[in-house]
Amino acid sequence: MRNPHSNGNLEEEEGRGEAAVENGFGDGLILGLDGGATSTVCVCVPFFPYGDRFPEPLPILGRAVAGCTNRNSVGETAARDSLEQVISEALVESGSDKSHVRGVCLGVSGVNHPSDQDMIQNWIRDMFPSHVKVYVQNDAIVALASGTMGKLHGCVLIAGTGCIAYGFDEDGREARASGAGPILGDWGSGYGISAQALTAVIRAHDGRGPETMLTSTILKALGLSSPDELIGWTYADPSWARIAALVPQVVSCAEAGDEISDKILVDAADDLALSVKAVVQRLGLCGKDGKACFPVVMVGGVLNANMKWDIGKEVSKRINQHFPGAQTIIPKVEPAVGAALLAMNFLTVKIDVS
Amino acid sequence: MRNPHSNGNLEEEEGRGEAAVENGFGDGLILGLDGGATSTVCVCVPFFPYGDRFPEPLPILGRAVAGCTNRNSVGETAARDSLEQVISEALVESGSDKSHVRGVCLGVSGVNHPSDQDMIQNWIRDMFPSHVKVYVQNDAIVALASGTMGKLHGCVLIAGTGCIAYGFDEDGREARASGAGPILGDWGSGYGISAQALTAVIRAHDGRGPETMLTSTILKALGLSSPDELIGWTYADPSWARIAALVPQVVSCAEAGDEISDKILVDAADDLALSVKAVVQRLGLCGKDGKACFPVVMVGGVLNANMKWDIGKEVSKRINQHFPGAQTIIPKVEPAVGAALLAMNFLTVKIDVS
Repeated sequence: MRNPHSNGNLEEEEGRGEAAVENGFGDGLILGLDGGATSTVCVCVPFFPYGDRFPEPLPILGRAVAGCTNRNSVGETAARDSLEQVISEALVESGSDKSHVRGVCLGVSGVNHPSDQDMIQNWIRDMFPSHVKVYVQNDAIVALASGTMGKLHGCVLIAGTGCIAYGFDEDGREARASGAGPILGDWGSGYGISAQALTAVIRAHDGRGPETMLTSTILKALGLSSPDELIGWTYADPSWARIAALVPQVVSCAEAGDEISDKILVDAADDLALSVKAVVQRLGLCGKDGKACFPVVMVGGVLNANMKWDIGKEVSKRINQHFPGAQTIIPKVEPAVGAALLAMNFLTVKIDVS
Repeated sequence: MRNPHSNGNLEEEEGRGEAAVENGFGDGLILGLDGGATSTVCVCVPFFPYGDRFPEPLPILGRAVAGCTNRNSVGETAARDSLEQVISEALVESGSDKSHVRGVCLGVSGVNHPSDQDMIQNWIRDMFPSHVKVYVQNDAIVALASGTMGKLHGCVLIAGTGCIAYGFDEDGREARASGAGPILGDWGSGYGISAQALTAVIRAHDGRGPETMLTSTILKALGLSSPDELIGWTYADPSWARIAALVPQVVSCAEAGDEISDKILVDAADDLALSVKAVVQRLGLCGKDGKACFPVVMVGGVLNANMKWDIGKEVSKRINQHFPGAQTIIPKVEPAVGAALLAMNFLTVKIDVS
């Protein structure tokens, strides 16, 4: 796939690739990868060995998209093949090759076990000469980097299908809250919001709870005729994302004045802000007086839906009530670019230290 | 397997079988079956064609146990074979055979679709002469019958791994509440109680909630060393029963004074009572003055755990606050006997009508 900023002219793209070497990109290239649930994105950017003084926007020399690289979903061979493919395509588009690569950083969800991380790291290492630095990080860390230009300081809050808050202090200490999945109370996630909405429909139908606009709105969205049919619909497919996709219906009911929907969203905003608060307090990001400045990067469809009932804004408001120095940031770059920035940060720190 | 009331003397058992015919059991036999998640129980009892005037305890002429007969779990062939086997064994133990059977009633969980019900009904019909009456009912209806000597009037509340409230008024109108599974808010179920407890442990560990005794108690019960390991444990196996099995730990923490555990159980009792209330009000079981008498049959491990913090007693108390005429009943007979009583009730009603 093409760089979204490209006009598709191959000659120009090749020229841009050469420019990477000729116009001050002689310091080499960095690959940033985002291994999502359905696809993998790879971007190729020039290496800037100056710490955090990067040009904005960062020049994207090549960008490619391939299938999922989560081996638990697609198996080891397919995952590895997709990784090879997406890296090759991004390098071809940048007009360069593996010999110019200085560092690679991949962000993936669900990489919590060191053994998983090691395995993917080894796959990538095998594709490059031994001097190339390879980093595999979980997607929360890459998301933080996408909002802080690669610096691991502050807190990131992701709320999409699932939710997690993750943070680092200046000394590199880490803390997390939530991210434990739907059974273990990720109530502010898209899945959590939708499950509460479905439950409200069932409770109204049973006579255990008040009537709600969610009933007609959700049944219409799913093409069902009775709340009884929701039971079959819910358990027919265990995918969390399928349930989480009902968030826009909950938001539109809240916007139309439905009290039940409003309460579900208020609770979600409270819960998401609480996750950030837990991370900030454990790391002391707010300083002793509680007023220190630190970034809170906000990522994911639940926070950035851009609707009138704005969950992200409500979460920000709550965070600032606790921590006046918190600066909420919506990243301007995609996670793959965050991964590239993170790789540059790691490489630069190494250079400073040596 | 043997009748639990038998001393195992085969000669005596055969004698008892003959007695069924000689000593006033010439009206034939009834088979009651309980098709549970892990096994199927069949009891053989004499038919009493006198409406609800049954001797107590009801004489059990034969009892057998076989494997699961849920075709979604074990496949169609195995389910059908187990049904054949358990019926044959119960008849052999009673010293009788299929020619004496007047009616068969099977209670199964998860039979909500008429097509499922029809299929199992046809399997059983094929095993018997055409004059034998065959009834397939969901397990909630059979559980109600086990507490009301076969009469379908009043409400049953089941709280085990899942929970459901189900009721009938005098005119045969039905209503249900809950029973929609863990995603759709069966909060008073064993699964619901345990999921709340696991969530409380994660929230305390994250810094999002207060410390609780549940942390050490649950980790010890599961042989884990840190709350982080709970995430892997929870998602390693999707069985709801495995999570629901933590209810005794929640109860023991509540008994030891843990406030979080106490609140989880109070909420569960509130929610279970609310399900009963919804059914009672929809059917008008409490009469116009709210004081009419009706039975509430209480079934399942959550309600009948017999611990000091008695969830069943708390639910009863709440039900009686709403409905002074509600009479809570813990069944003295097993569900298979409830199925047999139900079959007799259906047959007797038919006889009365004809």
